[in-house]
Amino acid sequence: MPHYTAPLRDMRFVLFDLLQAEAELAALPRHAGLDRDTIEAVLEEGAKFASQVIQPLNQVGDHEGCTFHGDGVVTAPAGFREAYRQFVEAGWPSVACDPDFGGQGLPTLVNNRLYEMWNSANQAWLMYAGLSHSAYECLLAFGSDEQKQVYLTKIVSGEWTGTMCLTEPHCGTDLGLLKTKAEPNADGSFALTGTKIFISAGEHDLAENILHLVLARLPGAPAGTKGISLFLVPKFLPDANGAVGARNAIRAGSIEHKMGIHGNATCVMNLDGATGWLIGEANKGLAAMFVMMNSARLGVGMQSLGQAEVAYQNAAAYAKDRLQGRAPTGAASPDKPADSILVHPDVRRMLLTARAYTEGGRALATWTALLLDREHSHPDAAVREEASELMALLTPVVKAFLTDNGWETTTLCQQVLGGHGYIAEWGMDQFVRDARINMIYEGTNGIQALDLLGRKVLMDGGAKFGRFAKLIQRFLEDNAGRPGLAEFTAPLAKLLADTVALTQEIAAKAKADPNEVGAASVPYLRITGHLCFAWLWARMAALALDKDDEFHAAKLATARFYFAWLLPEVEQRFREARAGAPTLMAMPADAF
Amino acid sequence: MPHYTAPLRDMRFVLFDLLQAEAELAALPRHAGLDRDTIEAVLEEGAKFASQVIQPLNQVGDHEGCTFHGDGVVTAPAGFREAYRQFVEAGWPSVACDPDFGGQGLPTLVNNRLYEMWNSANQAWLMYAGLSHSAYECLLAFGSDEQKQVYLTKIVSGEWTGTMCLTEPHCGTDLGLLKTKAEPNADGSFALTGTKIFISAGEHDLAENILHLVLARLPGAPAGTKGISLFLVPKFLPDANGAVGARNAIRAGSIEHKMGIHGNATCVMNLDGATGWLIGEANKGLAAMFVMMNSARLGVGMQSLGQAEVAYQNAAAYAKDRLQGRAPTGAASPDKPADSILVHPDVRRMLLTARAYTEGGRALATWTALLLDREHSHPDAAVREEASELMALLTPVVKAFLTDNGWETTTLCQQVLGGHGYIAEWGMDQFVRDARINMIYEGTNGIQALDLLGRKVLMDGGAKFGRFAKLIQRFLEDNAGRPGLAEFTAPLAKLLADTVALTQEIAAKAKADPNEVGAASVPYLRITGHLCFAWLWARMAALALDKDDEFHAAKLATARFYFAWLLPEVEQRFREARAGAPTLMAMPADAF
Repeated sequence: MPHYTAPLRDMRFVLFDLLQAEAELAALPRHAGLDRDTIEAVLEEGAKFASQVIQPLNQVGDHEGCTFHGDGVVTAPAGFREAYRQFVEAGWPSVACDPDFGGQGLPTLVNNRLYEMWNSANQAWLMYAGLSHSAYECLLAFGSDEQKQVYLTKIVSGEWTGTMCLTEPHCGTDLGLLKTKAEPNADGSFALTGTKIFISAGEHDLAENILHLVLARLPGAPAGTKGISLFLVPKFLPDANGAVGARNAIRAGSIEHKMGIHGNATCVMNLDGATGWLIGEANKGLAAMFVMMNSARLGVGMQSLGQAEVAYQNAAAYAKDRLQGRAPTGAASPDKPADSILVHPDVRRMLLTARAYTEGGRALATWTALLLDREHSHPDAAVREEASELMALLTPVVKAFLTDNGWETTTLCQQVLGGHGYIAEWGMDQFVRDARINMIYEGTNGIQALDLLGRKVLMDGGAKFGRFAKLIQRFLEDNAGRPGLAEFTAPLAKLLADTVALTQEIAAKAKADPNEVGAASVPYLRITGHLCFAWLWARMAALALDKDDEFHAAKLATARFYFAWLLPEVEQRFREARAGAPTLMAMPADAF
Repeated sequence: MPHYTAPLRDMRFVLFDLLQAEAELAALPRHAGLDRDTIEAVLEEGAKFASQVIQPLNQVGDHEGCTFHGDGVVTAPAGFREAYRQFVEAGWPSVACDPDFGGQGLPTLVNNRLYEMWNSANQAWLMYAGLSHSAYECLLAFGSDEQKQVYLTKIVSGEWTGTMCLTEPHCGTDLGLLKTKAEPNADGSFALTGTKIFISAGEHDLAENILHLVLARLPGAPAGTKGISLFLVPKFLPDANGAVGARNAIRAGSIEHKMGIHGNATCVMNLDGATGWLIGEANKGLAAMFVMMNSARLGVGMQSLGQAEVAYQNAAAYAKDRLQGRAPTGAASPDKPADSILVHPDVRRMLLTARAYTEGGRALATWTALLLDREHSHPDAAVREEASELMALLTPVVKAFLTDNGWETTTLCQQVLGGHGYIAEWGMDQFVRDARINMIYEGTNGIQALDLLGRKVLMDGGAKFGRFAKLIQRFLEDNAGRPGLAEFTAPLAKLLADTVALTQEIAAKAKADPNEVGAASVPYLRITGHLCFAWLWARMAALALDKDDEFHAAKLATARFYFAWLLPEVEQRFREARAGAPTLMAMPADAF
C-alpha cells in the first residue's frame, strides 16, 4: 500500500527562502498579520489531514468507485463522506475564502500548498471540494448580493458543494455549439432544459446540497459563444431560511466508467425544466465561467504536481528497498544478497526526473499563487496589473506543463517498480491513471498551448511575455559574475534569447498562414515551461550554492540534473516549433 | 466501441516493395515455394480472424477480466475459450512451426504480420497463444526427441499452451537470486518446489493442458545465474499415449489485479513437489530460456505496434467525425455547424506522430522478421551469421523503442478524443493501459537499453553495430545524388556519423567509469531506434518519391513529418547521453 508524507521541508524552502513569503505577505494589507509560524502550523495540520484521513481512502476509492443507484442517486466510495465531514468540521473549505462570507482569509499561497498535499493524498476525493472552491471564486466575482448570502456562505462553510456544467454530448472545446436552453419564468428565475456530460462531482452523498453552475442559452440569444449565459442551479432549492428545500429538476442520468479518478462521480446531468438564476449579465456567461475555469486550470496543475510527488515518494522508497543485481562498479552492499536498484544510473535518472519536475513544479505553482495574492490584494494598482498579466500568461503553462510532466513522472515512477508497478497492490498504476485526466479536462493541453501562444503571447504583441522576460533578465543581471552560477545562468540566458527570437519568427509567419500558430503551439508551451523552470532552478541553485547541509546539497544536485538532462528537451522543441504548418497540413484529410 | 481493420495495404508495401519479400524468400530453400498470392491470402484470413473473432472480445475481456475460483482454477473472460477453439481449428498456432512437428512452415515474416494484427485486435487474448509460440521455440531448440514428440506437437497444434516461469517474489531482473528447487526423482524426473509470480497465461480454461517452462536450481548448483536449470512442468502429466493424465502439483495461487491486459490471467504459481523434466543441460537454463526470451521480446514489440495501430485508427476516425470549432484559416465546412477537428494543426501532429511511429515500426519489425528467416534458413553461413548478429543488436531496439513509441502513440491518440478518450466506452484508455505493460515485461526497457549498449554494442568493440552501419552506408551510397532524396539522406548520414562518434566517446568514458554505460544507455537506445527509423523512412520515401497515387503521397508526407518532427528527438538524446554519470550519481542514496 502506498504512503505519503507531505514535503514540508521543501515547501518551507520554496515559501520562505525562494519566494520570501513573509516579506511578500507583509506588503499585502489583507494578509499582513500572517506570520511564518501560523503558515507552518496550517501546513502541518493540512499534512496530517492528507496522510491520516484521505490518503488511506485513495486505493479504496479507486477499487470501489462511485455507485449509481438509479433515479439520480449516486454514492461516493466508503469513507469519502465521513472524511468530508471531518474536512468541513476542521474548517478547511473556508481557509482561503473571504471573511465577509465566513472565510478565514488565508492567502492563495497557503491554500495552493494545501491543495498540493491533498491531491497527493487523494485527487478523486479532493475534487469534490476543489470544484466547490472554483464555484466560490465565480460567485464571489459575479454573484448578486442575495446569491452570495444564500449560496456563497454555504460553499465557504463546505456544507454545500459546487460543480461546473459546461460540456454537452456534441460540444466540449467549442462551447459555442451548446444547446441547453434557459426559458424565463415569471418570478425572475429560469427553467433550464438540456443534457450536460462529464460533470465532475455532479452528484454524490458528501454534502446536503450541490450548487451547479450551468451554461445555457436564453431565448433569442446570439449564436455561438456570444449567446451563452451562466446560471446557478441548485440540486435542492433553498427554502425561505436558506435551508435545503424542494428537489430541483437536475438529476444524474448515469456515471461514467473511467480510466482513473474512480472515487469522483463523473455524471451525465439531465436538466428537465430545472429552476435556475442568472449569474452576472445575460450572454456574458462564458466570461464569468472563465473566472472559474482559470482557477480550475491552476487547480489541475496542482493535481498533477500532487500525483507526481506521491509517485516519486513511493518509487524512491521501493528503489531503496529492492535488492536486485550489483552496481556496475562492484558490489555496493557486499553483505547483502544484492545491491539496491538505486545503484543503477538509469533508476536514478528516472527518480531525478521526478524530483526535478516535482520541485520545479512546486516552485512555479507557489510563485503563481503568490501572483494571485498580489493580483487580489496588493495596494498598488501597477503591481496588481503586473501580477494579473503574468497570471494570464502563465495559467496555461501551469496547467499543461505541470500535467504533461506529471504524466511523464508518474509513468517513470511506475517503471521503477517494474512488474510491481503494473499491479494494483502497489498503487503506482493509480497515480498514472489518475494523472491522465489532468492533461484533458479544463481545456486539453493542446487548447492550453493555443491559449498561450495565440491569445496570451501574440495577441498583445508580446507585452505579457515581455514582462516575464524582464523578470528573468533582472535575475541574470543581479547575478552576473556570481561564482559558480554560470552553469545555470548561461543556458537560461540563451534560452531566453532563443525564445524571444522564436516568438518573433512565429509572429511573422502567422501573418501569412494562421495555421503556423497551431503548428508551433505545443512545442512553444513546452519551451515556455522550461523557461520558467530554468529560471526557478537557477534561482534555487543560487540559494543552495553556498550552503553546506544535506537539503541544499540535494537541491543543487537536482538543479544540475535538470540543466543536464531535462532542459535539453528544448532543442527538439525549437526544431518542432520551426518545422512549420505545411509539414502537418500536407496530408489530405481523406488519407488519415 | 472501437473498430479495427488490418492495414493490409501498408503490409503489402512493406513486404513486397520495401523488403522485396518474394526475392528474399526465393533465396531460402525452406520457403522458396511460397508466392505472393499465398502470403496475401494468409494475411487476409488472419485479418478476418482479427476483426471478426477476437477484436469484438477486447473490451469484454477488459471489463470482465479473468476469474480465480480457488483451488487453482482460473477462467478467462466470456468468449475467450471459444475464440481459442476457432484459432486452433483454423490451424493458426502452427502457421510458422516446423512441418516435422505438424507445423505449416511459413516464414516468420508472415507470422510477424499476423501477430501485429492479432495484437491490434486483442493483446490479452493473443498472449495465451503468443507465450506458447515462445515455448515452441525453446523446446524446438533444446528439447529432447522424446520431449519434442510428446509436447512440441501439442504446442504446435495449439491443443496445449505454454508459459515462461521465471520471476519470483524477490527476483525479476536478477534471476541469479532465484530459489525454486528441483530435487531429482528416481525415474529421471525432478520434484520442483517454489513460488513463481507474474506468470502470464499461467492458468486458464482455453486449452486442456499447460506446459510450464520453469527455471529452478538443482541441489548443489553454483550460486547466481550459473546454477539455473530449465524444466518442463506440465499442468497435467501426459499418460502413456501422450494424452492428459494426472494433475501435477503446480497450481495458481491467485491472479493479479493489473492496470491492463485484464483478459490474460497473470498468476502466482505454486510448485509443491511438481514433477518436471530437465530441458537441455543442467545449469544452462538461462541460455535456453533466452531463446524463448528473445522471441518474446520481439513479440512484445509487436504488441505495442498492434496497440499503436488500432489506437491510431480509432483516433483518426474520431478526428474526422468530431465537429468542433473552425479552422484557423476560416471555415472548412461552412455548411456544417463546425469543422472536423482534423483542421487543427496540433490534432494532425498527434495523428501523424502515431502514423510515423506505426508505419516505421511495421517496417522495422518486418525487416527483423526477415532477418530471423535468413538466420534460420539461408543456405549461406555468412548470410546466416550476418542476420544473427543484426538480430542480436536489434532485438532490444525492437522491444524498447517500439514499446516506448507505443506508449506515446496510444497516449496521443487518447488525447485526440479529449474527455471521450478517458471513459471506457470508446476503448482508448484500454489501448493505453494494455500498452503500458510492454515497457515492463520480458526485461524492462531500461534493461533492454543496457543490453543494447553494454552487451551488444560495446562488448564486441562495435562489430555488430558496424554491420548495421554498413547497410545504411550502402543505402546512402546507392542513392547519392538522387533528386529529391537529400532531405532524407542528409539527416540520416549526419545521424549515422554522430552515432558512431557517440559510441566511441562512451566506450572511452566507460573504461574509466562503468556507470557511464548505464547513464548513457536509455538515450543511446532512443538514438539507435531513430537511426533504424530514419534509414527505413528514407528508403520508404525513396520508393514513394516518383509515384503519383494517394498511398505513396501519404507515405511521403508521413516521411517528411517524421524527419521534421520526430527525428529531432535525437538532439536531446545526444545531450543526455553525453551528460555523464556524475550528474546521476552525485545525489547521496539517503537523499532520495
